[in-house]
Amino acid sequence: MSTSSASSASRTPVTVVGLGLMGHALAAAFLANGHPTTVWNRSAAKADDLVADGATLADSVKSAVEASPLVVVCVSDYDAVYALLDPVGSSLAGRTLLNLTTSSSTQAREAARWAADFDSSYLDGAILALPQAIGTADATLLYSGSKAAFEVHQATLQVLSETGTVYLDEDHGLSALYDMSILGIMWGVLNGFLQGAALLGTANVKATTFAPLARTAINVTTDYVSAYAQQIDEGNYPATDATVAVHRGGMEHLLHESDALGVNTELPKLFLDLAERAAADGHANDSYAALINQFRKRAV
Amino acid sequence: MSTSSASSASRTPVTVVGLGLMGHALAAAFLANGHPTTVWNRSAAKADDLVADGATLADSVKSAVEASPLVVVCVSDYDAVYALLDPVGSSLAGRTLLNLTTSSSTQAREAARWAADFDSSYLDGAILALPQAIGTADATLLYSGSKAAFEVHQATLQVLSETGTVYLDEDHGLSALYDMSILGIMWGVLNGFLQGAALLGTANVKATTFAPLARTAINVTTDYVSAYAQQIDEGNYPATDATVAVHRGGMEHLLHESDALGVNTELPKLFLDLAERAAADGHANDSYAALINQFRKRAV
Ligand SMILES: NC(=O)c1ccc[n+]([C@@H]2O[C@H](COP(=O)([O-])OP(=O)(O)OC[C@H]3O[C@@H](n4cnc5c(N)ncnc54)[C@H](OP(=O)(O)O)[C@@H]3O)[C@@H](O)[C@H]2O)c1
Ligand SMILES: NC(=O)c1ccc[n+]([C@@H]2O[C@H](COP(=O)([O-])OP(=O)(O)OC[C@H]3O[C@@H](n4cnc5c(N)ncnc54)[C@H](OP(=O)(O)O)[C@@H]3O)[C@@H](O)[C@H]2O)c1
Repeated sequence: MSTSSASSASRTPVTVVGLGLMGHALAAAFLANGHPTTVWNRSAAKADDLVADGATLADSVKSAVEASPLVVVCVSDYDAVYALLDPVGSSLAGRTLLNLTTSSSTQAREAARWAADFDSSYLDGAILALPQAIGTADATLLYSGSKAAFEVHQATLQVLSETGTVYLDEDHGLSALYDMSILGIMWGVLNGFLQGAALLGTANVKATTFAPLARTAINVTTDYVSAYAQQIDEGNYPATDATVAVHRGGMEHLLHESDALGVNTELPKLFLDLAERAAADGHANDSYAALINQFRKRAV
Repeated sequence: MSTSSASSASRTPVTVVGLGLMGHALAAAFLANGHPTTVWNRSAAKADDLVADGATLADSVKSAVEASPLVVVCVSDYDAVYALLDPVGSSLAGRTLLNLTTSSSTQAREAARWAADFDSSYLDGAILALPQAIGTADATLLYSGSKAAFEVHQATLQVLSETGTVYLDEDHGLSALYDMSILGIMWGVLNGFLQGAALLGTANVKATTFAPLARTAINVTTDYVSAYAQQIDEGNYPATDATVAVHRGGMEHLLHESDALGVNTELPKLFLDLAERAAADGHANDSYAALINQFRKRAV
């Protein structure tokens, strides 16, 4: 008996259903790492280059599912997941279904119950990366659900990110909850950048001129995040940096500036509202971390 | 004749008016670098440790101003700046006034006209740093206004940040406009983090557990910023990563998740509104950078 760890034959076959921007990147990574890769997409043409590189294009979702012990689905939403996989549910029996489609935690837990009815091992996952970053150290992927299934396929999943493969919890909803939390930050950064680019645009400052400074500012802010996280867990918010009152003052300027220059004021107005409510709740002299109490409750 | 570049005597005397969290850090940096430093604060006790380290506490704003060719003011807002300095305006003649108090560009330009009436050289500045970072490579300070005054005092200002001292433009308003743009990003990051910490808190995930992943997400997003800046300047928005439609789908999940878990929904709702308006404007298949058009105009 000879062992040949580098040969394709020894690698777990993987099926990828959905070859949009992200699904395509996932399939390409499995393929590039020697996994026998079966693909299926509603618009078959998106498989062309993968097939040219050695992937097998299945002629139906059913045969795609039946080709591999690990079935990865990455489509627009869970309606599409069910539309594709519910009709072939019995073929999922004994296989691991990894759903990398973005969802809420409620949806992920529902999908876990749905998959359990088919005797499938279900993993829900969240991709914190651009398609381009799949397979690189820049990608982080979070998994929750069956720990046993994760462990069986861990080596295969590390193809998507060797260092950024994180198993969270048996609770299938947790990766989605992390995903939402992280996407919220991402949109926070991007919208903040767009607000700034719009403001500076009124003075003919190019977005590419602003970008390096914006990146510096973003990097500086990551340091606050760690310090504030500790204050949040401890439940008190000493202002060793800037007080909520100082932030509120700056926010008033941002709102007036945006208004005076005719750019969108919704984000500045919401920032200011939140800080004013925090001050009204007695946090004017606390650090910005005290705003956690505004985020924990519904707006009044 | 002997030269002694390291002696205090050869360093420009500096006055700092306002010794709050930030003003105190500024004065401490000048002092630590051998500048004869005169300070004044409404609550005199905040000068105690600076005086112990060799600073001179002025007995009035007037004598503080008259002690140095470079007068730095850093107080809560411009009302405080005028309240302190307008009565002693004639003492500003022939000196450089550097105002590091946060403001809008309109206020900065007004202050420049006010200072010109007193024959003072006026620099407006913005501090992109925590007080703790003053004097380190983590601090960035932006200056606008009199280029001549900046050049005379550049070496002194580099005490606050040797590498992060940036002169922008003769337009006194530009540092404030950059400042607002950068603060908008900072609040975007922080609010995004707090939204996520609140969401994960409902599943008993600690903020300190979330923080490292949050930092990773923030760092990943900085890469988008550069790519999107280029698209914004070019005025077209090819979605090589994720489309506005994909983002909108994720935002719906964030909104539902936040609502279902009883946390604040204002930020998710605004994110979704903006993306929906961008899609309605024909940008559903463009990259997120296309949202610049929503930020450039008032909401309808
Ligand atoms: N792109 C990113 O940066 C990124 C990052 C993290 C997570 N994600 C997540 O990954 C998932 C896919 O995103 P993407 O960027 O790949 O989106 P995309 O480029 O828009 O692709 C969508 C995919 O879903 C398929 N699909 C949609 N509705 C379908 C239906 N009713 N029946 C069958 N197939 C259907 C599409 O098939 P057709 O090709 O036939 O239209 C396509 O394969 C989303 O949940 C997204 O949130 C994306
Ligand atoms: N802290 C930061 O992280 C940070 C970062 C960037 C920019 N900034 C900007 O720096 C400026 C100062 O912030 P800070 O953090 O130092 O604030 P702070 O700790 O609240 O200090 C405020 C300062 O203003 C003085 N002041 C306020 N109203 C006054 C009045 N009517 N007359 C005389 N003095 C008055 C205070 O004097 P008393 O001590 O007598 O109250 C104190 O010296 C603000 O514009 C802020 O936006 C701060």
